[in-house]
Amino acid sequence: MTIGVMILCCTSQTFGQVPSGYDLWLGYGKIENVELLRQYEQAATSIYFQNNSEILEAAQKELKRGLGSMLDRAVDFTDSFSTANSMVIAKKAGLDKAIMKSVAADLDRIGKEGFVIKSVQLKDKDILVISANEDIGILYGVFRLLRFMQGHKTLSSISLVDAPKIAIRMLNHWDNLDRTVEHGYAGFSLWNWQKLPEYIDRRYIDYARANASIGINAVSLTNVNANALILTPMYLEKVRALAEAFRPYGIKVYLTARFSAPIEIGGLRSADPLNAEVQQWWNDKAEEIYAQIPDFGGFLVKANSEGQPGPQNYGRNHVDGANMMARALQPFDGKVIWRAFVYSEHDADDRAKQAYSEFVPYDGQFMENVLVQTKNGAIDFQPREPFHPMFGAMPNTPLMMEFQITQEYLGFSTHLVFLPKLFEEVLDADTYLKGKGSTVAKVIDGSLHDKKMTGMAGVANIGTDLNWTGHPFAQANWYGFGRLAWDPYLSSETIADEWIRATFSNDPKFVGPVRKMLLTSREAVVNYMNPLGLHHIFDTGHHYGPGPWVSELSRPEWNPTYYHKADEYGIGFDRTPTGSNATEQYAEPLRSMLNDPKTCPEEYLLWFHHLPWDYTLRNGHTLWDGIALKYQEGVDQVQDMRTTWKNMEPYISKAQHEEVWMLLEIQLKEARWWRDACLLYFQTYSKKELPEGVEKPTRTLEYFKSLKFLFAPGIRPRWD
Amino acid sequence: MTIGVMILCCTSQTFGQVPSGYDLWLGYGKIENVELLRQYEQAATSIYFQNNSEILEAAQKELKRGLGSMLDRAVDFTDSFSTANSMVIAKKAGLDKAIMKSVAADLDRIGKEGFVIKSVQLKDKDILVISANEDIGILYGVFRLLRFMQGHKTLSSISLVDAPKIAIRMLNHWDNLDRTVEHGYAGFSLWNWQKLPEYIDRRYIDYARANASIGINAVSLTNVNANALILTPMYLEKVRALAEAFRPYGIKVYLTARFSAPIEIGGLRSADPLNAEVQQWWNDKAEEIYAQIPDFGGFLVKANSEGQPGPQNYGRNHVDGANMMARALQPFDGKVIWRAFVYSEHDADDRAKQAYSEFVPYDGQFMENVLVQTKNGAIDFQPREPFHPMFGAMPNTPLMMEFQITQEYLGFSTHLVFLPKLFEEVLDADTYLKGKGSTVAKVIDGSLHDKKMTGMAGVANIGTDLNWTGHPFAQANWYGFGRLAWDPYLSSETIADEWIRATFSNDPKFVGPVRKMLLTSREAVVNYMNPLGLHHIFDTGHHYGPGPWVSELSRPEWNPTYYHKADEYGIGFDRTPTGSNATEQYAEPLRSMLNDPKTCPEEYLLWFHHLPWDYTLRNGHTLWDGIALKYQEGVDQVQDMRTTWKNMEPYISKAQHEEVWMLLEIQLKEARWWRDACLLYFQTYSKKELPEGVEKPTRTLEYFKSLKFLFAPGIRPRWD
Repeated sequence: MTIGVMILCCTSQTFGQVPSGYDLWLGYGKIENVELLRQYEQAATSIYFQNNSEILEAAQKELKRGLGSMLDRAVDFTDSFSTANSMVIAKKAGLDKAIMKSVAADLDRIGKEGFVIKSVQLKDKDILVISANEDIGILYGVFRLLRFMQGHKTLSSISLVDAPKIAIRMLNHWDNLDRTVEHGYAGFSLWNWQKLPEYIDRRYIDYARANASIGINAVSLTNVNANALILTPMYLEKVRALAEAFRPYGIKVYLTARFSAPIEIGGLRSADPLNAEVQQWWNDKAEEIYAQIPDFGGFLVKANSEGQPGPQNYGRNHVDGANMMARALQPFDGKVIWRAFVYSEHDADDRAKQAYSEFVPYDGQFMENVLVQTKNGAIDFQPREPFHPMFGAMPNTPLMMEFQITQEYLGFSTHLVFLPKLFEEVLDADTYLKGKGSTVAKVIDGSLHDKKMTGMAGVANIGTDLNWTGHPFAQANWYGFGRLAWDPYLSSETIADEWIRATFSNDPKFVGPVRKMLLTSREAVVNYMNPLGLHHIFDTGHHYGPGPWVSELSRPEWNPTYYHKADEYGIGFDRTPTGSNATEQYAEPLRSMLNDPKTCPEEYLLWFHHLPWDYTLRNGHTLWDGIALKYQEGVDQVQDMRTTWKNMEPYISKAQHEEVWMLLEIQLKEARWWRDACLLYFQTYSKKELPEGVEKPTRTLEYFKSLKFLFAPGIRPRWD
Repeated sequence: MTIGVMILCCTSQTFGQVPSGYDLWLGYGKIENVELLRQYEQAATSIYFQNNSEILEAAQKELKRGLGSMLDRAVDFTDSFSTANSMVIAKKAGLDKAIMKSVAADLDRIGKEGFVIKSVQLKDKDILVISANEDIGILYGVFRLLRFMQGHKTLSSISLVDAPKIAIRMLNHWDNLDRTVEHGYAGFSLWNWQKLPEYIDRRYIDYARANASIGINAVSLTNVNANALILTPMYLEKVRALAEAFRPYGIKVYLTARFSAPIEIGGLRSADPLNAEVQQWWNDKAEEIYAQIPDFGGFLVKANSEGQPGPQNYGRNHVDGANMMARALQPFDGKVIWRAFVYSEHDADDRAKQAYSEFVPYDGQFMENVLVQTKNGAIDFQPREPFHPMFGAMPNTPLMMEFQITQEYLGFSTHLVFLPKLFEEVLDADTYLKGKGSTVAKVIDGSLHDKKMTGMAGVANIGTDLNWTGHPFAQANWYGFGRLAWDPYLSSETIADEWIRATFSNDPKFVGPVRKMLLTSREAVVNYMNPLGLHHIFDTGHHYGPGPWVSELSRPEWNPTYYHKADEYGIGFDRTPTGSNATEQYAEPLRSMLNDPKTCPEEYLLWFHHLPWDYTLRNGHTLWDGIALKYQEGVDQVQDMRTTWKNMEPYISKAQHEEVWMLLEIQLKEARWWRDACLLYFQTYSKKELPEGVEKPTRTLEYFKSLKFLFAPGIRPRWD
């Protein structure tokens, strides 16, 4: 028997030995604790699983795999209910009456996607029940139970009733048809268009499993800087194959729609949204797509933004463009997700104000199946930004959150940065739009303005790297995004804890220090890149490393000097009424708090204020010293992360440990690069010495300015 | 104890479950046969391993891994010799005297890289001995023993004495600095320049292991369409890290040198090889490289070929260019590998003749550390080409073979084609230059003209795909290339047998049919793409699919119509004295045989002859019917491959079976596409019906001509 089991798991003919990481948080490590194992074994003695759909088939396979791996034995199921069952997994309609009594009230409040996991007493026996109203709830319930067990939690009197708080929980892949990924740092696009539709890469399934395990139910496959070819029959056939691979995991496929597609692939001479031919073309295209993919999600659109075509090319506005597409998709229940990331080279106003200025007046004019997708901040996914003032300001429009999981401005995939901490900060931010407590989370989940259609998107950090995300710890950002899209009120600490246990170890000597490392990592990157509200001082194009000196790009608002405005007097962007008055887009009392440097949170100080170098910070330091000390603090924090990680060696494999260690080495090198390059540059204006405690740069400013990275990853493709 | 072992191999925290294929032919499947297991166990009872270098460390680790996996237990070593040893692994210098007696003669004839594996009787006891003169021989010996065991062969009276017949056994990666791979179909470049030098991807080590296991000892990291940046300090530091990762596996690193580098990165105004400043620049560059990488292999150069700069830009010739670099590398024992793949847009002569015409007159003029690397045929890696007439024609110059492992003209990574069959055909070809038996293999291994410096290069088919090569069976082409570079006289059948057993199964019900499938697969692709000597009728640029109609490219010799010359009279390229007289480059009696269509092997018929559509083939069919039937035969052969594979289901895992099945589906679709598109096109000239037995096309010629593949993989990068 033992030998049999060993062959099952060791035969290299079936599964290869690869470096850790491919399994993500679904490794399902064997349970070694005897008491826990006994308890889990008991629950798995006789499992009734009602399986009559492809989603339920996926759920059953996952349970077989997960339980089998944790219990280290083959797991079987029975296909009829009996009192001998120790576990019962069935939808509401298939539940035994006695069990039904215990879960009926729960089922009434969890909607289509929720689930109940409950230990139910039946004839003096504990039965573990997973139930739901729909198949997808069962799948989510199975994944939740497995994670619960991965966290080594006790099953006795378990009672988990949960349902997602946001309807569309979505990944945005910025993947190009040539498989490059814009701002992708984990290799290349998962989508092997050349081999589709016939060849279904095993990775597509494992990707879908990972998404379903955290509740992601929508993916946009292609870059928002879109190529119209994706809408041609040759590609739609391939998209269909992906949609079919994802469907058993409850995931709907969306595509980015290039606004000029009617011209580029339709042979029309215009893409004017008020042109009847153009409208007909989109109507026909929608019909063509839905004939192949009946549950197609809809279009994600970047229009009149950074050179992408849009309705303004024809003197029309965003409402005209979005509603034209929305009308085409409406018969099929498809959605238009229209991005609000716009700023114009012809508008001299502060870039931070432009999206608000342009979109808020349209509130209430979009069709019902349009969502407006808004980045978390008004600039562009900086290490820290104040929340976007559009949140809460369009009560009659469903506003969808766009977070960036890929680390465009956060060290690519070589820096360990736990982003749920950033996401949480945004979601917890108070807009005050309906009084205190009007948090961004309440805008996004629809509760503030009573919305049903809600959504949260994350720009994916996933690629062809063996470990999916380049950095093993970047998996936590995919994981954490999914968890927050499911429940935007979860704490980053809970998420870190769950992820560490599922991915690495339950040993408290590991979980504690690593959780602490995760939770401080985001502040570290803010400190060594953009402290005290500095922002967008990255090198050009690829955004790899510091470039505060860059000032000669054609569009003023693409230059770092536009954002930090360092001069001999001081540094920072005055966004108060004496400056761009961007603060007027925020509600009171927040607006007044931001306007006064004495009440403005210091982490946003230079975002909103231009202050002299000898301005006194709350800790008594001058601004110059404070900036320098923050940069040093960031470097020190990375040093601390290394110390923490060094001590973790006993708890994980050598390969796992070494991999992260090598990456931390890069992170430390680059943190010092940021500190030295930025301080040397700002020093040319401040003309002040570095304060005590800040390490002296070993290179010159000229050296840092001379660095060129022609082949930094993630650059926009040349066909665009 | 058993539980301990199980944790070792099952803990998902260390190794993830991924689809098969990552392990290549190094899966080391558990030995299930009881008698064999007993025998192997006995040999592994007490292993003396003399380990005192990084190469020996690599060898010992591999033995521990391989034996451990096959025996399914942890394997230990002793560090001192005793009569209790069942296995002894030591270099000549470390051998016990009694053992030495049995292997001394063998050691004398195996040189630096060879090995002896021998069962030696010592005091009535059989001891398995692996010995060699140098560390690298031990590494090769360990890999050979492991493969021997993977083939389930008996150890009793084992006696393997082997040494490589070719000195430089090399992979050429056509990898660009942006990680695209020219004509790469297995994802993207393994080399993650962004994370080097700090981050050593586990794949680098597994890549080196795989290479060492088949004797590959040299790799050129970068595309022959070169970018000079690779020679800058920033990149050399990264190259150094790779060289250090590969060194324990006996692999030397080469780089492609862009001829104009002195201008592009050196700030000079010329790259003239007779200019003293230019010479000094290369001398300095060589010194700079060797300071970092003491065992750097040298430069691989594509010059004055397809737009690459070269000595002719300055009125100099290939000898001037190669010798300039050779002088720079000579003090460090570095080599220049100068490619002979040249053809000029200004030369109206048959492209097939140009490399010979240009290079043969230089015979004897190159410095001693220059090798001239020549593609196997005179055109460009076609499914079938006559051997390149340069082989044997330059007796005073080391000629290095360039094979293409990546399937540029052989169906990318979706067609199952076993290339050792192609390589064998070339190596076995008789040049007749020193009488009958003057095979290409004897040119390449140096025996025909008594050369010590010898080499064989293969353009790699390796990328970031989980299974390395895109198609699981394309691994066999990497494997087979390495084996033939070690011993160009190996049969493709032996190679197929070895690879199947190491990769999949030793079950004769699997090995037999799959070996047969491999051995016929190359003829199948010739039949459905380029039968009877047709060549270079691929679609433009990407070479994906048929494009016999392409006729409007700027350079005449880039057009398929240049090669097939189909007209109302007939089809084929007259290369006899009535045509381009390319046959004069071959020795007698081959030349005369090729000149006469009645004696020309029919597989080369249309390569050398333009013949009427009603020309009678040896089987009695007209040429038109013969072409059509060959296309159909190719399609039928793919059908047969599917039937074979269908029957293999019981012998491998479901995932393995399904993966190949999906790929065969694409291959069949594309074989039909080739047949239909080519026959419809040629029919416009032949004006004849398809013969009986050939399936009617279901699409029109216009449809096939309309197909466009803007994002086919492997296209040349845009920065080039």
